[in-house]
Amino acid sequence: MNASPRADEDFRHRLDFAAEATEATLAGLLATQRLPDEIARPSRLLEAMRYASLGGGKRLRPFLVIETARLLGVEGTGVLRVASALEMIHCYSLVHDDLPAMDDDDLRRGRPTCHKAFDEATAILAGDGLLTYAFDVVADAATHEDPTLRADLVLALARASGLGGMVGGQALDLAAEIAARPLSQAEILEMQAMKTGALLRFAVDAGAMLGRASPQQSSALTAYGKALGAAFQIADDILDAEGDTVALGKRAGKDAARGKATLVSLLGLEAARKRCDQLVEEATQALDKTGLKPATQTLEQAARFVAARRN
Amino acid sequence: MNASPRADEDFRHRLDFAAEATEATLAGLLATQRLPDEIARPSRLLEAMRYASLGGGKRLRPFLVIETARLLGVEGTGVLRVASALEMIHCYSLVHDDLPAMDDDDLRRGRPTCHKAFDEATAILAGDGLLTYAFDVVADAATHEDPTLRADLVLALARASGLGGMVGGQALDLAAEIAARPLSQAEILEMQAMKTGALLRFAVDAGAMLGRASPQQSSALTAYGKALGAAFQIADDILDAEGDTVALGKRAGKDAARGKATLVSLLGLEAARKRCDQLVEEATQALDKTGLKPATQTLEQAARFVAARRN
Repeated sequence: MNASPRADEDFRHRLDFAAEATEATLAGLLATQRLPDEIARPSRLLEAMRYASLGGGKRLRPFLVIETARLLGVEGTGVLRVASALEMIHCYSLVHDDLPAMDDDDLRRGRPTCHKAFDEATAILAGDGLLTYAFDVVADAATHEDPTLRADLVLALARASGLGGMVGGQALDLAAEIAARPLSQAEILEMQAMKTGALLRFAVDAGAMLGRASPQQSSALTAYGKALGAAFQIADDILDAEGDTVALGKRAGKDAARGKATLVSLLGLEAARKRCDQLVEEATQALDKTGLKPATQTLEQAARFVAARRN
Repeated sequence: MNASPRADEDFRHRLDFAAEATEATLAGLLATQRLPDEIARPSRLLEAMRYASLGGGKRLRPFLVIETARLLGVEGTGVLRVASALEMIHCYSLVHDDLPAMDDDDLRRGRPTCHKAFDEATAILAGDGLLTYAFDVVADAATHEDPTLRADLVLALARASGLGGMVGGQALDLAAEIAARPLSQAEILEMQAMKTGALLRFAVDAGAMLGRASPQQSSALTAYGKALGAAFQIADDILDAEGDTVALGKRAGKDAARGKATLVSLLGLEAARKRCDQLVEEATQALDKTGLKPATQTLEQAARFVAARRN
């Protein structure tokens, strides 16, 4: 079932709102002036951190935090701070991923990558700085009055980002490359669930935590986040296989060029598209179990958007 | 006033205890088997994280956490977890610092650096993994039953490690190198207070937080940590100026070779030594204000140890 033109317009409006609110929150957190807390801010490092996190990106992860919390009736500064902290983690991972020793990319979001615009050492430190600052922002009392919630959010964010999540997934991807051994389908699914899926799942889970979801709502939203994350990754593989560099704002065809196995290379384009559609359906069905229809419409649209995106 | 032979023996015993307890805690946290929480652990990444954090180092920062908490009557698992998380941050910073794009060092603690033993990409990810895991460990309920304390520790650790602390100090150091402009004495002091001082201060502050220090004790201990941190850095500059590579277990004479200004190059060896002695005296006087003498003896010894160390 497709959305009405009106629902589609609403969705675009919500996407824009999330992007603008995240940009403004990040800009405030990474302000160039010395803050009241008297923390010195080395200008070149801060400039690199701003370059890496401001002025670009779909802000999909912040959008999911914001819309999941809003589904449960919660909006405001705390939600935006958690959304922005998550985006810092996403941006740091791109900076480190683009380094010569990693993917060695020169282009990101249509601009020179951080180590090209600055230098490698500054890019390494900017990534470290963004990663560290994310936990500062979440743990700060300005994010939420309840310290248990703050500690829980820090723990969930660290797990989604670390050894058992994003960083671990990158390492699995890298290990396959070093061993020059294409991964099996099951291994690709596990690697992707860690590398990209974990942060997307955290986005939805964080929104549920901030919105004080009931246990039933939580598990429905976790299932939604899982399906959406898997759909996102297949769409990414499809885009890499058939996308062009200009539309993507980053180099296309990387996986094939490296002989890396993806779901597209294993299943073929047609079957990959079908699997992606199934995952969107799964995501939608999971939302039905929150008992919050029709307010779930924006998140439903998000699953379709993720699967159909062109960059 | 020098310590008695007996006090000296006690101090060595406490140092050994901290090193062994930290090693055991880190080994447990970085165990190679899949943990009950079902987190997948990519083996090569985990191996690199273990390589970078196990089997070496004086464990000075954990020692300061442990002894400060013990001064206030608190010992046990929670203290060891915070001490180990702090050591993870210290170890990640060494891994990233040693990278070719940064200090380009081949030797650390008498062994090949992480990117030499593994590869650059794995070293970058291992650093990211250790940094992220540190916040996981602190935020976990296994560290302390009080969520406010856990959130406060996360916040303090993030601030000590990030833009306004360690990473910021590294960036200031780097910026001076890129600009090929030796820093002034005031700039060196600020850079060092951030680059090395912030984590040492956090070690003492974390011990005070875990030990539920009174406001007066807290501010006395913070003053102690500040003086000890400054003494540590001067001793480091002295060691770099006159040390030899074998005793240090890392390359000596790096600063002079790069024409970098240090307190030793600005003040001369004699005046630097004198300043170091003054700082030890300041640290001791700060401890007197905790009202906990003579139990403060181990921390007093620590300040002398830091100033007099030979590696």
